[in-house]
Amino acid sequence: MIKDLITKSRSYRRFFQEVAIDRRILRELVDLARLSPSAANLQPLKYILSCEPKKNALIFQHLGWAGYLKDWPGPAEGERPSAYIIILGDTEIDPAIHCGANRLTPPSLWRGCDHGIAAQSILLGAAERGLGGCIIGTVKREELRRALALPARYEILLVLALGKPKETVVIEPVGTGGDIKYWRDNQGVHHVPKRSLDSIVIG
Amino acid sequence: MIKDLITKSRSYRRFFQEVAIDRRILRELVDLARLSPSAANLQPLKYILSCEPKKNALIFQHLGWAGYLKDWPGPAEGERPSAYIIILGDTEIDPAIHCGANRLTPPSLWRGCDHGIAAQSILLGAAERGLGGCIIGTVKREELRRALALPARYEILLVLALGKPKETVVIEPVGTGGDIKYWRDNQGVHHVPKRSLDSIVIG
Repeated sequence: MIKDLITKSRSYRRFFQEVAIDRRILRELVDLARLSPSAANLQPLKYILSCEPKKNALIFQHLGWAGYLKDWPGPAEGERPSAYIIILGDTEIDPAIHCGANRLTPPSLWRGCDHGIAAQSILLGAAERGLGGCIIGTVKREELRRALALPARYEILLVLALGKPKETVVIEPVGTGGDIKYWRDNQGVHHVPKRSLDSIVIG
Repeated sequence: MIKDLITKSRSYRRFFQEVAIDRRILRELVDLARLSPSAANLQPLKYILSCEPKKNALIFQHLGWAGYLKDWPGPAEGERPSAYIIILGDTEIDPAIHCGANRLTPPSLWRGCDHGIAAQSILLGAAERGLGGCIIGTVKREELRRALALPARYEILLVLALGKPKETVVIEPVGTGGDIKYWRDNQGVHHVPKRSLDSIVIG
């Protein structure tokens, strides 16, 4: 059931870093994105894969983790992702992806939904394989671009962190106060409030 | 296998209109989106469901279909979707979703990927149930807003057309010319060129 897979596919931020993910697996995951819908069938997304410790470390330092966990700077060495898939927008295919001259901000002039579709397909494929990950939008884009020597035609849209999850994530109802901030309890369990179905279906 | 479901979940534009979809099914599909990732867990998406002929007809007239099929104005009566899920952005939750004062254009100032994630979850759920659909971004947004008497706080992001598919869709490799435009052959089969895995993995 797709519901089981979607429920299993939580956002994980701590991993068994020693469990490597083969590049072949990453290619299989990107193939799921390749077969997914694309607006006007343009297919402007390109992908950079990483499963080697050195390249992983290079990517890691440009990522922001778990904005609501103010006392947690991100996963410690040993609990970091063992792989990444970077989702790029190829502006030679779709110029609208360009987010502005300085690229300090995330892509702000692009109305597309291809990157979300691709990310979900990849993460569901990961969940099916007993892996998990996190869609990261907080990226030092210009620095990561330089570190990867990425040509100007490619816009960094999202970074998907992947690994074998080392934490428990539990879905909770949103409380009466309406707070949607996730939190981590004393046992290290990560709690994620989700709005009710009745509150999001409005007609 | 998620790959089977993703492969099965093509963009369909002609349906057995007489096969109704119950509102309960639409709610189950939205529940899949509800359980999917959301940037900063804000969950700004809201949903309008339609499975009644009158409401369906009202929505249909504000949609653009298959931009590359110049001689085809969209599905004829009898082959139209039997349901819709309209994905809205609640700007009281995330003001960045607002696309500008006149709203004549699609959301252009929003960098989010929640709508793509939600759309893919919903369409995979539909495929699992033997249904299919199409993510429609070409929407007369201001007219549809008025027709639905939609409050200003909601931005129309995408319309998902749903039904029991009445057409065959085949994936093709992109030819040497690089053309990604889909086409329909003499037998009415819809062909969709997809880029190769090797051409989209660039690092």
